[in-house]
Amino acid sequence: AVDDRVSALMAGLELEMPSSYGINDRKIVEAVRSGKLPEEVLDRAVERLLKIIFKAIDNKKEGATYDRLAHHLLARDVAKECIVLLKNEDNILPLKRQGTIAIIGAFAKKPRFEGGGSSHVNPTMIDIPYDEIEKLAGDTVRLLYAQGYNPESEEIDENLINEAKDIARQADVAVIFAGLPETYESEGYDRPHMRMPESHNRLISEVSDVQKNTVVVLSNGAPVEMPWIDKVKGLFESYLAGQGGGYAIAELLFGLANPCGKLAETFPQKLSHNPSYLNFPGEDDRVEYREGIFVGYRYYDKKGIDPLFPFGYGLSYTTFEYAGISVDKKEIDDTETVTVKVRVKNTGNMPGKEIVQLYVRDVESSVIRPEKELKGFEKIELQPGEEKELTFTLDKRAFAYYNVDIKDWYVETGEFEILVGSSSRDIRLRETIKVNSTRKIKKRFDRNTPIGDLLEDPMGAMVFKQLMEQLMQSSPLFAGIGGEGSQMMRAMFRYMPLRSLINFSRGAFTEEMLNDLLERLK
Amino acid sequence: AVDDRVSALMAGLELEMPSSYGINDRKIVEAVRSGKLPEEVLDRAVERLLKIIFKAIDNKKEGATYDRLAHHLLARDVAKECIVLLKNEDNILPLKRQGTIAIIGAFAKKPRFEGGGSSHVNPTMIDIPYDEIEKLAGDTVRLLYAQGYNPESEEIDENLINEAKDIARQADVAVIFAGLPETYESEGYDRPHMRMPESHNRLISEVSDVQKNTVVVLSNGAPVEMPWIDKVKGLFESYLAGQGGGYAIAELLFGLANPCGKLAETFPQKLSHNPSYLNFPGEDDRVEYREGIFVGYRYYDKKGIDPLFPFGYGLSYTTFEYAGISVDKKEIDDTETVTVKVRVKNTGNMPGKEIVQLYVRDVESSVIRPEKELKGFEKIELQPGEEKELTFTLDKRAFAYYNVDIKDWYVETGEFEILVGSSSRDIRLRETIKVNSTRKIKKRFDRNTPIGDLLEDPMGAMVFKQLMEQLMQSSPLFAGIGGEGSQMMRAMFRYMPLRSLINFSRGAFTEEMLNDLLERLK
Repeated sequence: AVDDRVSALMAGLELEMPSSYGINDRKIVEAVRSGKLPEEVLDRAVERLLKIIFKAIDNKKEGATYDRLAHHLLARDVAKECIVLLKNEDNILPLKRQGTIAIIGAFAKKPRFEGGGSSHVNPTMIDIPYDEIEKLAGDTVRLLYAQGYNPESEEIDENLINEAKDIARQADVAVIFAGLPETYESEGYDRPHMRMPESHNRLISEVSDVQKNTVVVLSNGAPVEMPWIDKVKGLFESYLAGQGGGYAIAELLFGLANPCGKLAETFPQKLSHNPSYLNFPGEDDRVEYREGIFVGYRYYDKKGIDPLFPFGYGLSYTTFEYAGISVDKKEIDDTETVTVKVRVKNTGNMPGKEIVQLYVRDVESSVIRPEKELKGFEKIELQPGEEKELTFTLDKRAFAYYNVDIKDWYVETGEFEILVGSSSRDIRLRETIKVNSTRKIKKRFDRNTPIGDLLEDPMGAMVFKQLMEQLMQSSPLFAGIGGEGSQMMRAMFRYMPLRSLINFSRGAFTEEMLNDLLERLK
Repeated sequence: AVDDRVSALMAGLELEMPSSYGINDRKIVEAVRSGKLPEEVLDRAVERLLKIIFKAIDNKKEGATYDRLAHHLLARDVAKECIVLLKNEDNILPLKRQGTIAIIGAFAKKPRFEGGGSSHVNPTMIDIPYDEIEKLAGDTVRLLYAQGYNPESEEIDENLINEAKDIARQADVAVIFAGLPETYESEGYDRPHMRMPESHNRLISEVSDVQKNTVVVLSNGAPVEMPWIDKVKGLFESYLAGQGGGYAIAELLFGLANPCGKLAETFPQKLSHNPSYLNFPGEDDRVEYREGIFVGYRYYDKKGIDPLFPFGYGLSYTTFEYAGISVDKKEIDDTETVTVKVRVKNTGNMPGKEIVQLYVRDVESSVIRPEKELKGFEKIELQPGEEKELTFTLDKRAFAYYNVDIKDWYVETGEFEILVGSSSRDIRLRETIKVNSTRKIKKRFDRNTPIGDLLEDPMGAMVFKQLMEQLMQSSPLFAGIGGEGSQMMRAMFRYMPLRSLINFSRGAFTEEMLNDLLERLK
């Protein structure tokens, strides 16, 4: 959304969407005529747009065709890679292809598979979860179906819930398709809460009361609260899985495919745990992003708040063992790279894929940093018993933070922990290396700098020591501190601002000496 | 601490502590001479200081005496009112005056009873907890003592812990005196963590392993983490209880007095739950108080984070029943007051005091507000079976927030819940009233105001409706919205910024009309 077309152009944004039907074009012409907008800026923008347009035209193939089925199969594969298995108590999944399965929820027959607004697409075909389950289940399974809720309304329909409970009672396992209706999430507005419709929540809760083997398949574009989570044994987060999602979930349910998606976001236990909760959505025209760098897992890690499901989390039908972390160097300059190797083995009975995640933790930092930051990940496929070695290469950016004073990424010399794991809350391997900064930055000191901070800086400590020696010779108060005295000085002065030395010394340390000290530290 | 003496004087701060030994006086003289500091400002400051000094001198009585014992007894009474009973599982407290009691911890014989730095006082006498317990216990109790830890060090002394475990095993109950040594908290610096010394924590943990009837008495100036909380049955927070604290705790332990203190702060489960944790202590010379209004219970309430012990919490040896909340008016103007009455009854067997707390909750607010705010409290004493009626009078400030635009306290017209309870997390009674604002404030609108926000304002809605009617006659796009249309308009335009109407209407709504609209809303 472009607010001020001319300012946006000057700032380098050449495209306006949606169109202003010539209204803003007239403003551009006016701005060029009045000299407010340099014509070169407009030329550059037009050139950039035309380049894309010409490229599109040049590459346009008349009568082009493509294999719709092949593309659909690709959509199925992508969905299989993305759907996340979040819970699998008592290994209820994969489902056995036998007995009676109750398929519950309107989304099973009318799937929610795409986003709203500009993310609406034109699917070439759509897999219906119920139909795909029916095909894959074969003759050995008796399938029952109940709608459970009205997909167009969030009102609870007791009849639909009772119907669902009836078939759940008759079945060996219930699979409930639920999530967020399209009206709940789209572009152009924010959800004011994280709840699913009460009709979905009640359905899941009541069905799981009568059927202890309940699996939920969620379709939704973003995290939701799950008041029923402890009552269900299995949970798939299928997100908005696209036109092939129905088939993908059927394969995953029966174990014809092995789930391998991981969460690229945190699922909090409740809305109020969100990092932005206290300041959302702002007041009138004031919106403050007070969470700063503490978004996503960085927030939940640092606050010590347990999420419902952490960033990077996702289960598999097989198990993976992590071993043998090694680094090629234990100490590097920030101009060098370090290579990290780990081994991951499939220790289960099914082929599977694992997303191995590498996080970096700054052991000690003079600025506020997250507990750890994701710096690499790799998805690998492993046959049962197979082991592979993975290599991650980390450069300066893996250890750096953005230093607002120097307006650049900066590594503070010190130790860094390299953490490799299966999710942000399941770290399996650790190694420590030291990274040395090749860039010197000056700390800023002023009259209110605590003396302890000054002493932590090598230059500051040196200048301060000289000053103290001078004072010890001239002032009886300072003489008392003793000869070497640095230990005592630290204890006495740790939290005292520099300016307090003037009063403390009863004037032996003067305003002029303070200014001189600060001058020498510049 | 005064940074810049002259600026501080100009801002109305006349007193400098600690002294600058004439150094800053010279700066004041200089500033008056150079004309930087108006002499009247200095005169006013001097006058204020002299007033206090003269008053002190005038009231100075030569050879004045006072009753030291009476003052000491007062100190004991104050301590009894302030000590907070935080845990009393299985009614382990009050202790019976029989059997064997193990008194553990150096603080029992060398109490920590006062703060550091300028809160050091000169006590006329000091009650030693162990001695007072011994006196009150009488001949029917066998008392054992072990030091448990070295009060001068935080290092764990296994011998001292083993000694403590030995006597704990021989006793019917163990009372451990622990907390924070004076070096842990003082003025002039901040604690970097909330831990007790590991020697105290280990002692409590190990003693409670061998003695299931363990009571802890804490002496500390501020909240601590309690990793051992689930292992002990009783817990007193005695804070820094002053010179009579030793006797007070002895009376409370044996039930000769009934605990009645309540927490005036939140005890979080862990340091990272603190509202300021993500930004503490800042970076270099930048410190951001990002928690804003969400300090204390306001933070834990809103974030839905369970504290270890909530604000306003404190147990008694008796029980209280709350009943019959009533208000004298269900609707008031913000210039009026409302009277709230509640009845509280002592339903236990012991005389006791209860601190009844009144909180106000703004049911719906256009600005970000806490879940509830404390607006009144009352401490009452009740004999067993006795019931009293309490009256709270609430005025504008009980419902108002500080409006930064009008730079004044402001009540937003609407419903407010009045919550009366025994702690911030134990609300027993609720009543709702409506408060009408007598002050009209204009909402600020600009081109980026969402249309929904405009429609929420009566004036905005009126002006917008006129505009829409005009547009519906002139533009086919708007005609489609329909005659009355306000429902449809709301749905369509809720989140659309005003400026988007220009593009949406393809120019029927012009830039000029937008400016005119904003002008009329000023």
